[in-house]
Order: sequence, then structure tokens, then C-alpha cells
Amino acid sequence: MGFEVPDLPSGPLDIYRKKASFNWKEMLCFIDGGDMLAFKHHVFKTLENDPLFARQPGEELPIEKMRELTFLRVKQLFRYNFLTKEEAMANPWKVMVLSDCLGMYDWAVATKFSLNKGMFGATVANSGSVRHSKYVEDTDNMTTFGCFALTELSHGSNTRAMRTTATYDPSTQEFVINSPDVEAAKFWVGNLGKTATHAVVFAQLYTPDHVCHGLHSFIVPVRNPKTLLALPGVLVGDMGKKLGQNGLDNGFALFHNVRIPRENLLNKTGDVTPDGRYVTPFKDPNKRFGASLGALSGGRVSITRIALVNLKLALIVAVRFSATRRQFGPRDTQEIPVLEYQLQQWRLIPYLAAAYALEHFTKSIYFNFVEFQIGQMMKDKSDRQAELGREIHAIGCSSKPLGSWTAQRGIQECREACGGHGYLAMNRLGDLRNDNDPNCTYEGDNNVLLQQTSNYLLSCLHAKFHDGVLIESPLHTVDFLDDFQKILENRFNATTMEECMNSAVPLAAYKWLVCFLLEESHKRLEQQRIFAKDEFEARNNSQVYYCRSLAMAYIEHNCLQRFHELTIDRDTPSGLRPILIKLCALYGLWSLSSHIATLYQGNYLSGKKPAELIQMAILTLCSQLKDDAVALVDVFSPTDFILNSPIGNADGQLYKNLWSAVMQGSQVLERPSWWKEFCSDKPVVGSLCSKL
Amino acid sequence: MGFEVPDLPSGPLDIYRKKASFNWKEMLCFIDGGDMLAFKHHVFKTLENDPLFARQPGEELPIEKMRELTFLRVKQLFRYNFLTKEEAMANPWKVMVLSDCLGMYDWAVATKFSLNKGMFGATVANSGSVRHSKYVEDTDNMTTFGCFALTELSHGSNTRAMRTTATYDPSTQEFVINSPDVEAAKFWVGNLGKTATHAVVFAQLYTPDHVCHGLHSFIVPVRNPKTLLALPGVLVGDMGKKLGQNGLDNGFALFHNVRIPRENLLNKTGDVTPDGRYVTPFKDPNKRFGASLGALSGGRVSITRIALVNLKLALIVAVRFSATRRQFGPRDTQEIPVLEYQLQQWRLIPYLAAAYALEHFTKSIYFNFVEFQIGQMMKDKSDRQAELGREIHAIGCSSKPLGSWTAQRGIQECREACGGHGYLAMNRLGDLRNDNDPNCTYEGDNNVLLQQTSNYLLSCLHAKFHDGVLIESPLHTVDFLDDFQKILENRFNATTMEECMNSAVPLAAYKWLVCFLLEESHKRLEQQRIFAKDEFEARNNSQVYYCRSLAMAYIEHNCLQRFHELTIDRDTPSGLRPILIKLCALYGLWSLSSHIATLYQGNYLSGKKPAELIQMAILTLCSQLKDDAVALVDVFSPTDFILNSPIGNADGQLYKNLWSAVMQGSQVLERPSWWKEFCSDKPVVGSLCSKL
Repeated sequence: MGFEVPDLPSGPLDIYRKKASFNWKEMLCFIDGGDMLAFKHHVFKTLENDPLFARQPGEELPIEKMRELTFLRVKQLFRYNFLTKEEAMANPWKVMVLSDCLGMYDWAVATKFSLNKGMFGATVANSGSVRHSKYVEDTDNMTTFGCFALTELSHGSNTRAMRTTATYDPSTQEFVINSPDVEAAKFWVGNLGKTATHAVVFAQLYTPDHVCHGLHSFIVPVRNPKTLLALPGVLVGDMGKKLGQNGLDNGFALFHNVRIPRENLLNKTGDVTPDGRYVTPFKDPNKRFGASLGALSGGRVSITRIALVNLKLALIVAVRFSATRRQFGPRDTQEIPVLEYQLQQWRLIPYLAAAYALEHFTKSIYFNFVEFQIGQMMKDKSDRQAELGREIHAIGCSSKPLGSWTAQRGIQECREACGGHGYLAMNRLGDLRNDNDPNCTYEGDNNVLLQQTSNYLLSCLHAKFHDGVLIESPLHTVDFLDDFQKILENRFNATTMEECMNSAVPLAAYKWLVCFLLEESHKRLEQQRIFAKDEFEARNNSQVYYCRSLAMAYIEHNCLQRFHELTIDRDTPSGLRPILIKLCALYGLWSLSSHIATLYQGNYLSGKKPAELIQMAILTLCSQLKDDAVALVDVFSPTDFILNSPIGNADGQLYKNLWSAVMQGSQVLERPSWWKEFCSDKPVVGSLCSKL
Repeated sequence: MGFEVPDLPSGPLDIYRKKASFNWKEMLCFIDGGDMLAFKHHVFKTLENDPLFARQPGEELPIEKMRELTFLRVKQLFRYNFLTKEEAMANPWKVMVLSDCLGMYDWAVATKFSLNKGMFGATVANSGSVRHSKYVEDTDNMTTFGCFALTELSHGSNTRAMRTTATYDPSTQEFVINSPDVEAAKFWVGNLGKTATHAVVFAQLYTPDHVCHGLHSFIVPVRNPKTLLALPGVLVGDMGKKLGQNGLDNGFALFHNVRIPRENLLNKTGDVTPDGRYVTPFKDPNKRFGASLGALSGGRVSITRIALVNLKLALIVAVRFSATRRQFGPRDTQEIPVLEYQLQQWRLIPYLAAAYALEHFTKSIYFNFVEFQIGQMMKDKSDRQAELGREIHAIGCSSKPLGSWTAQRGIQECREACGGHGYLAMNRLGDLRNDNDPNCTYEGDNNVLLQQTSNYLLSCLHAKFHDGVLIESPLHTVDFLDDFQKILENRFNATTMEECMNSAVPLAAYKWLVCFLLEESHKRLEQQRIFAKDEFEARNNSQVYYCRSLAMAYIEHNCLQRFHELTIDRDTPSGLRPILIKLCALYGLWSLSSHIATLYQGNYLSGKKPAELIQMAILTLCSQLKDDAVALVDVFSPTDFILNSPIGNADGQLYKNLWSAVMQGSQVLERPSWWKEFCSDKPVVGSLCSKL
């Protein structure tokens, strides 16, 4: 498809755009490809041309209105049907590209849409059977609206401990769904606040013999689709204001002996016969439970991407601002753009490098996940498929922390780097921060998830020690660990700053680091096992400085490794290679710089020189990249309408756009409605003063 | 005054409260003293008993309403007149205690109140003369409402470059205030959005001979106090929504040849005679300018305290939540409070130690500032007073970054540590983060301010090298630097973890660190002076890893030093000493741990052991302090009404309070007003689908 990338408007940013060392359109085509570019452009323009999606930067809407608008926009997405199921199957990446586009507009819209279609619809399709296909159809045409109800008021991370019950009654062939108390109320469920008519509810399944078969999922109608009134026995409502994503209606539900047909059990991993016997293809209940939570695993890979999109948007705003905001200068007469300052470069450009690293990383792990999913759909029972599952799990559990924390810190840095103007709501940095924040929490708290990754790595080492098994994995993210003893003998050997400006240097350091932390974590755990009361305590007391750091180092290494491979890939255009090499080296060094203490501690570094070389290489790369920074964010940038941040507009008319947006606010120049409160009824100072 | 501290309600937090190793009431009295406790209690109860201050956790109010309510509450503060000028003079600390109390309730109220009284009223009083006393009186009884207008749309940090002009016209004996263009509009001015009738406007003063005498401040009426309508020639309005503090009306003003009487020039540092001659007691215009911005200096010391208050509130919420939230456990049957996890302790307890360090630090530097202010009022022209001014400036410029960043990161950690419930607006962590955020920016961007501190330190070293001057200062914060060569010979010499658990260890390390960074920064600057185009560039290129780190290390050292001195002070009650010693050691080690790489780099540390000792000491201290954590936040805690966070209530009834607050929300259980949008007008899937 011959999609032509439109030129950007001319303006104050031209100075930097002309200085760029690469062709931004070539980069855009390399990253997205022509088809996806055309698709993105189509989605952006469709939203921009539809008055229902119109908005003002920083506009103030009551939550009820935000939820209504979000709902109406989601409804409109059904009409646009940007992506059919067939297209999605043929090109799974397009699902993520559509999510990127909608999320760039507003994550509440994207999330509301995908919670219904994905978390509800796809869970029913994947965890249910042919008897549930009507629910999927009703979801697809919005006859009903779905949600996914796992978390309860008093339980989140500990999913197994959910307390909602589903007791089978053979006399009527129904399940009775019950919340034993308020603490067992389903809580935080997206779409449940206002719109959901049906929920996938996770509950402890009890057969008539009073045996609990563990957590299973059920389709539970919660509201009448004809009236949106709550059904009898269901106390369902809205949780109120959140820090962000207020277009999405998160809600709660308390069930008082709600009866649903036996068939509403999603029966892929276990079923109950009409007379009340429990049957399951899984012998190990842990495996059954794991399989039923499969939907969460894919979610973590997606969240990593969602966080990246937020980081990109913040960087577009902050870099364009920094290139046009002038403050101080060598002489009083001529002020220079703040992007010219070493400090500003160091605050922003490493995050820009991180965004490029994560761009490739999130795409690459998404395709890994798709490969795994296809295996699951094909009922691949091979060892490789099982191994792939474990590896993907370890990746997802650490990629989400990497992505969401990098974004959270990066957005905050962007906010501060834009000074006061970054604190103005219309410039969107606040919304980006607030909307990104839950990525650190949902589908698993970051710190808790990291333990899954370190457990995986430790189990690889254990298998090697105890059973002499080679450490290798389908995606090869752990293969190098098999050489850990040899790698631990390596030392930092760069002697000039120029040598350091190559991603091979941080990559080698990261390999050493992961091996070191793996060995240290193993030792720590062994030592704790001697002193601790039990395995639970031994694990808990090995997290800080050990297992947690190990998991982070592992995923940072993997992200860097994949980016490094891209820079040397023969398919990478030669015109883009120099800039990608610099970005990769900067990402690697900057990311590594948070581990310098450990590198010294383990004697990988020694003396004053190495840390200095790394620091100088970071500063030099920042300085070399500053003339490319504007072009680098142009590559990521959606249209101004989608970006919705006056100080980040593509024309770079910082003050003109900001002033104009301020003037378009409501009641900007009017005196306050309560002006008489000032002008009359003057306070008598101290009139209400009372003695202590 | 025999104020008796009320007991806290019994509940699930009792378990921890009983385990505390110290008497929390004794700590409270030690920190605040009986008089201040009574005063705080009085303010809290007064607000709680006044329906005007009633509120619901997480309530949603339109911005117009928030601004009105904030105004009405400020008006009510005039009536309560909690602190007379006389009392404030007699006990300056009470000013800060009142600010703490109001800020704990809502920073918008506290800020709106103090911008009028302090930034406008006190600036007029301090920078003006007897001819301006009417303005002060009008401010005191709310006949008028004031604001402080320095920042412009295109200039913030570079205050000298402000472009508003004040041209004297001898024919009418007036100044003509003019904004040359939109970029020179005064911007971000608190109170100017809706309420201010008068502004202290900073403008370039021009005499009729077209000579510019630099920035001066003028009283400019902007709105008619009888109608709140803008005065002719003044385009004044509201900037709209901010990330936080939306009760405060920040605004802008554009002046079109607005005429004000000659007398409205605040003439302490320079005046214009009726016939148009400029007269000033200052020979050096830089000194004159510095003196006129004196109000900002005190502001930074106050902001450090404001940030601390935010951190405290967040910690109260997060620690009480962590003590009552149970998740997982050694056995499935018994879940344990998340505070029992090493990871959760390590995330929260160091910030708690930081809050105790900052509690003493902010009070102590406030008294330093008061000492300086008294000197200024007494027109102390001694060298010591001048030196004190420079030192206070260096402290304020780094204490604000230390306080605001520690709070910003700490609040984010608290938010995440409370999981999803931390993301619910009613629990206040979002507001705390959003309201704290501008502390990083206003009264000087943190990164820019740090340069002032490093410049001070470098100038001390320069004076020693070039003129053989001893490095010493009135507050002794730099005295140790005089021994820098000797200190640089020191090495870390603790050999056991127990040894490390004493603040003397991090304190010694910090002394070495500051000396090392000072010497390195000096070298870097010298080296840059050879390569750089000019001094401007040489300075800019010495910030990252050098001057910036130097300034941070200096202030962290000073904060630790003062806390360390408190722990060994004879007046510190012996019953509190053990806990304070632990907190001090933890703060020191934890704070130091961000510099471990530098300590290795400079060979202060070597080998694997030292970093490990430090890490193990941190974890051990966290573990020892976890049973004290609840009592430690009880000390800081205002009443539940003021804290306004259901998961942080003193009774620890986490779920009961949370559920009840959710149920008190508006339209919680109602179907949405737009329910028909769901039930009718169903979308035809793909009906708006168009080909690419």
C-alpha cells in the first residue's frame, strides 16, 4: 500500500528537524511498515473527523459525563469496527496497533472496549465451550456488555484466596453465587460500575458434597440489558473517582444467593455433571488453576506496551517543549533552547532511548506470546510448548514492571522538565501519569510479579545443579546462564569512552550482572533456608537486593539484547543503523548505571576509571543525540488532535498554542459566579476566634 | 498548658501499637511540645466542627465550586484568625505549625491564604515603605485580595529576563505598566485567576530618559474590589485546570498601558523621584535585585516543610494500610499483614525514617532562617549576617529539592504499596502526589536551584585555594570541608553489620562523599574551562554527575548531621533515644545507598563486604522498626477528619471504612443517567466502517 507519510508543519522546530542525522520517515516506515502506518492514519483521522470524539485540551468534565462519553465512544467503535476477528487472526499485531491508537486518544476508551471484547468475550470463548457461544455473539454486537470479576475487596495478589462461592444445587441444576461478606465483594472490576450486564465471576466451586474444588469462572448476569437495573440479589455499583482513567467505570458487586444455570460454568478446565459430580481433565489442581488464569498472562505483555505508549506521548510533549522553550544563554541577549543544556538532555534523552528499546522489545515479546497462543490453540502438548509457557510467564511478569516503572518515572521527569507548563492539565502530562499509574498494579503488583521471574531463573539454576540439566529455553533468554561460572570471571575491559559507546559493553556487563545476582540470590536463599522458619519466610527474606534485583536485571538484559540484535540485523536499513546504535548504547549504559554499585561490589568494575567512562559515554551520547531528539519523537507522534497537548503540537508554536488553548477554556475571563462572596459579607477579623 | 493527648481508638492496629518499643505520646510531646499540640488540636477541631469545612473522601467537585469553597474557607480563616501578627512575631514556629495544619486539610486553602497574607502582604510590607501601609491593612481585613506576579508565560527560572515594563511618565507622575506581547503575560500567579484585586507585579523600570533600571516590584490594581470585574487595560483570567491544588485559582494578566501612581513602586531597593530620576541605596544592581527577591528564599525553606507534610500523610495511610491488609501467609489458612514482608518494609520504612529526619531538619533550618530574618529586620550589616544569607540560600536551594523529591517518590511508593486501593481517589494518595508535585517546580526548578548550592560550595573551595581562607560558615554546614584533603584519606572501616547500624557510619561516609564530589566537581569545572566556549558552557557541562550530585550530597549530609546531633543531644529523652538512633541510622544508610557507586569509584569502599554490610544493616533496621511503624505514624497523624482517607483511619478498620466511604458516594447504586444509550440505539457492527 503506497501510504505517504504527510510532512510536518513548518515552525520553530525546523531548526532541530534540519539537524537530524537520519530520515524520520524512513524510521517510521521501518518501525511500523506501510500497512500499519496507513491503518494508524485511518484510525486517527476517523476519530478526528467524528464530533463524538471532539475534545478540548484540559477540559473539565464531571465523572458521570466522562463515563457517558466513554461509553458512547466505545459504542461508536462497534460501528467503525476497525478490526474484524478475521483480520486480527491474520495479523495479530494489528490488535496491538489498534490498542496503541485508541490508547493514545484515551486509555479509558481503549480499556472499556477491550475489557468487554477481550477480558469478557475472549475469556468466555477460551475458558468456555460451545454452549457459551451465544454470550460471545451478544458481546460482539453489544446486546450485552461484559466484565471480568476476579479481585475482591480484601484479596488481589492472592487470587487463590478469593472467597466468593458457587455452590451447586442439583435439585434445580443451578449454581448459587454468594458473597459471604463485604470483604468478599468483587471490587475494581472495569465496566462493572455502570454498564456491565454480565460478568465472568471467579468463585470457589462447591459440589453438593460440600467439597471445594477451587476457583472457577462463571457467567453471572448482573444487570438487566433492557433497563440496566441491577438484577435481584446483586448489589452492584460504582467505586467512584480514581486517580485516572475516569472514563472507565470500575465497580463492585456483592452477590446474595444469586442463581445461575449449571451451564454458566466456564467448563474448559472443569465441569459439574447435572447430578453434581465434579469432572476435570486436570489431575493437578494447581495446573487447572494456572490454565484458568491464562488471560492474565497475555495482559502483562500488553500492559508493557500500554506503558510504552504513555512514555512516548510524554516524551513527545517534553522534547518538543524543550526544543522551543528558551531560558538563559551565554549572553543576556540570546537565550538558548533548554534542550541545549546537559542537564535537560540527561533528564530526557535516556528515556527516549528507553522508548526505542521498548518499542522493539514490546513488539518482539508480543510475537513470542502469539507463538505461544497459537500453540495453545493447536493443543500443542510438547515439552517445548510447556517450556515456552514458563518462559513467557517469566518475561511477562518482569516486562510489566520494566515498562510501567520506566514509563512512570519517565513521565514524571517529563512533567518536571516542562516546569510549570507541565503542571497545567491541558498539556496532558498529568493524565498520562495518572492513567499509566495502574499499570504498576493491575494484573499483578509489580513487586509481587517479579518473584515469579526470579523463581523461574532460580529453578533453571537448580535444575542445572541438581539434575545436570543444560540451561536453555525456547526463546533463549536464559541460555547464557548455563555459562555463568565462566561469565563471572569476565571483567569490564573497555579503556576509552569511545569503546563504551557500543551496546556490546553494557550487554557484556549485564550478562555478568545477571549471573552474579543469580548466584548471590541462590546463596542467599540457601542461607535463609537455614535460619528461616519455613520456605515461605526464606523466599520473602531473599527478595530485596537479591531476587528482586535479579528479575529486573534479567529483563533489562533481555530488552537490551533484543535491541542490540536489531542494530546488527541485516534487514535494518543502513541509513538508520548509526542512530539505532547510539540509542541502543545509551539505553544500555543508562540502564546499567543503576547497577554500578553491584558491578563494583562483585569486582566486575574496579578503580575510578570504569564508572567515569560509562558516565562520560552517557553524557556524550546524550549530547550527540540532542539534535536528533525532535526527529526521534516525530517518529512516535500521533496527530496533534490525538496528542492533545498544546505545548507538544507538531508546529512547535509553543506559546501561541498554549495561549490559545488557555483562552478557549470556559469562563476564562469571566468573574467568578460567586463574586458577591468576595465583595460583600466581609469577614470581621477574629470574630470567630476562641480561646484554646 | 496541660494538654492531654487523646487515646487512639482501639481496633486491628492494636496488635502493632502494643508491640511498639516507645511511648508514642512521649514522642509527640518531644517533637511538638504541649503548647503546639494544643494549638494543632484546636485548629483541627475548629475545622472539623465548622460545616463549611465538611467534605467527603474522594468527593467530586467542579473546579468553579472548588475555587469558591476554597475562597469561602479562606474568608473563614480571617474570622478564626488562628494566629495574630503579634503571636507570630513572638513565636515564629507557630506560623509553620498553622501552615502544617491547614495544609494537612488542603494545600489550596493554606496556599491561597498565605499568598495573600504572605507573598502579597509581607512583600508589600518588606519591599515597600510607610506609604504602602494602607495596602497591608486592606490585605489584613480582606478589603482587597493580593497576589505575587513574577513569572511570565515565556520566563520562569530566568527571572531577570522578565519583559513586563513600567515606564515612568513625569507629566502625570504615573508608571505605565505594559506587557509587550502575549509571551510577557504574567502567568501562573496564584489568586490571580478569580479573586485578586491587587498584584505585586515585577517589571523592568524605565525612566523617561529610556534607561532601564532592571526589575522592580509595583502594586498594580487588577480588579475592582467592589465588583471583581477587571480594570481597564488589564486582561486577567483563569489558567484552568492544573494537575492538583485546583482550589487555588492560578491566573494570568496582560497589561495594556495601565497607569498606576508613582507611589505604587515598592521603593525599598530603589525609587523614582517625581521628576523621573532613579535613586537607589544599592550601588551594585545585582545586589539590589537579590534583595528584592528575598521573599522567594524563605519560601524554599517553607516548601521543604510542605513537602514533608505530604510525605507524612502518605506514610500514615500506607503504613496503617500495610498493618491491616493481609495477603498470603506461610499457610493458606492464616494470612499475614503485608507489613510483615521484607519487601513492603523496605519500600516504606526508609521513607518513614526520612520523614523523621526531615521533621527535625525542616524545623531546624526554619529557625536558621528566622535568625537571618531577624538580622535583616535589625539591619544587621555585619559580615556574619551576609555570610548567613549566603549559607541559608545554599541550604534553601537544596533543601527544597531534597524535600520535594523525597516526598514525590515516597508518595508514589505509598500509592503503589497500597495496591489498587491506593489508586482510589478517596484514599487521597493521588491528591497528595498531585498537590506535592509543584513543590519540585515553583520558587525555582529543583535542578536549576541545585546549581546555586554547588556554586556556593565551589566558591568556598575557591576561596580556600586562592586566598587561603578557612572554610567555615555561620551554621557550620561547610566547616568540615576545610579538612577535605584529610577526610579524603578516610576509608570505610566498619567490619560488622552491627557497627553499621549507627548513624556515625553513614555520616562519616557522607563527609567523605561531599569532599570527594567537591574536589571532582572543581576538577571537572577546571577541565571544562579549557574546552568550553565560555564560563556559561563550562558550568552547564559540569552539572550531571558532578555539581548536581555535590549539592544533593551536601544537603543530605546536613540533614543527617542534624538528626545525628539530635540523637546524642542531652535534652532528647532517654526513652526515645533508641528509636531515634535506629531511624537516624536507617535514614543515613538508605540515603547513602544511592551513592554506593561513587563510594566505590573513589575507593572509599572496596571489595564485596562493605555494600553487603550496608544492605544488611538497612534490612535489619527495617525489620526491627516494623513493629514501631504504626506508632511512628500515629505521632504524625492528624485526626481522621483531617487525614480524610478511609484506609488510613486511626481505628484500622480498613474494609469497613472503605466500604462505607464507597457507599456514601453519589449515585453509587443508581443506574447511569444515560442508561437508554445502552439499551436502545444498538450499534450495527461495521456500519461506519470505511475502506482505507
